[in-house]
Amino acid sequence: MRIGELSRQSGVPVPTVKYYVRQGLLPAGERTHANQVRYSEAHLRRLRLVRAMIDVGKLPISTVREMMAEVDSPDRDLNGLLGILSRTFADRTDTAAGPVDEQTLDDASGLLRRHGYAHAPESAYVRDVADVMATFRRLGHGDQLESFMDTYAAAAMRVAEVDLDSISGFADRESTAEAMIVGTVLGEALFSAMRRLGQATVSRTTFPQDTGSTGEARPDAPDRYR
Amino acid sequence: MRIGELSRQSGVPVPTVKYYVRQGLLPAGERTHANQVRYSEAHLRRLRLVRAMIDVGKLPISTVREMMAEVDSPDRDLNGLLGILSRTFADRTDTAAGPVDEQTLDDASGLLRRHGYAHAPESAYVRDVADVMATFRRLGHGDQLESFMDTYAAAAMRVAEVDLDSISGFADRESTAEAMIVGTVLGEALFSAMRRLGQATVSRTTFPQDTGSTGEARPDAPDRYR
Repeated sequence: MRIGELSRQSGVPVPTVKYYVRQGLLPAGERTHANQVRYSEAHLRRLRLVRAMIDVGKLPISTVREMMAEVDSPDRDLNGLLGILSRTFADRTDTAAGPVDEQTLDDASGLLRRHGYAHAPESAYVRDVADVMATFRRLGHGDQLESFMDTYAAAAMRVAEVDLDSISGFADRESTAEAMIVGTVLGEALFSAMRRLGQATVSRTTFPQDTGSTGEARPDAPDRYR
Repeated sequence: MRIGELSRQSGVPVPTVKYYVRQGLLPAGERTHANQVRYSEAHLRRLRLVRAMIDVGKLPISTVREMMAEVDSPDRDLNGLLGILSRTFADRTDTAAGPVDEQTLDDASGLLRRHGYAHAPESAYVRDVADVMATFRRLGHGDQLESFMDTYAAAAMRVAEVDLDSISGFADRESTAEAMIVGTVLGEALFSAMRRLGQATVSRTTFPQDTGSTGEARPDAPDRYR
């Protein structure tokens, strides 16, 4: 198909398609005549994937380019691709913060092991989990920590299982890699939206609507700061 | 306590403490003498909360300020605060993208209802869910959609339940609001880290290590683009 048809079928404007080609997100079309470039169904499919990553996944162009280069390198095994995806997302989950003590790291590792997670204890993600646990305790909510963590660990493992389930069973390498990216990027947005809806649902029973403003005026700066 | 002691106990440098006060994230201390300002345990607690939101939650200063103002307004009911929190997070989950068709919106609404979600059909989060479903289908993964969505919906509801559980039972308004923020901000980072660890765990069995590079050199641009 010509570029105009590619644009029409994907809903991506022609200048944007050209930009994606220049940026290396989309392979160039095949030049058939001096002045004519032809695109295939594979281009359309790639273009839709790129759009989903940018629009739904909110990923920067540079990350999309890196991921597409991975999908197109035949010498990568798929387990390795998943690792690269995880690293790409690392800045989203990298909880920085201060040094985590050994005890909390052990607690986090033990919790994950109990729930069937296999992980290197030095993994950045284990540190993230330990970091959240430490912050919880520091803020004085340590007593609720155990049941909170158990529920999260079980739910996250179930979600990870369907994430990977949705990836297996594809015939070709590109489809598998594509499904991996779709599951990872879309799954993040999906869980986030559902969690908020769930919180809103549960909060209606936990905090029955008390309609605010009771007429009692109180000073702006609460007493506890005096 | 003096500002130096507040800094030592919180691990936040003195100039940063002053900056937070100027930015309205932390109430000013009480001026006891011409040249002396005193801070209370309440300041320490607030400072730790602000730090967790910035470091772990990666929230911008402006969002933290808005949230703290909510916590300190006595005329807000807690259900309302949760709504404000949700809106604050909306740009993380707002999946923009194109118009979603009525059928997909109905599908998303039906799925959520089956899983016990109570929601206004026009909610931005329902649109987010529908948007992800539409993108899944557009990318040709529609057949896996149902079991994928069911697992996510069930897991997200379980997580939302413990999120709210961890909030109830506090005696005072500030503690409840604080727990709400902690649960929401830390929960997001926690689930994300655990999901990645779970994916890595499951991928080891789904994609047993095939060690890449088989020696067969293949051309850079795959055939399907010709």
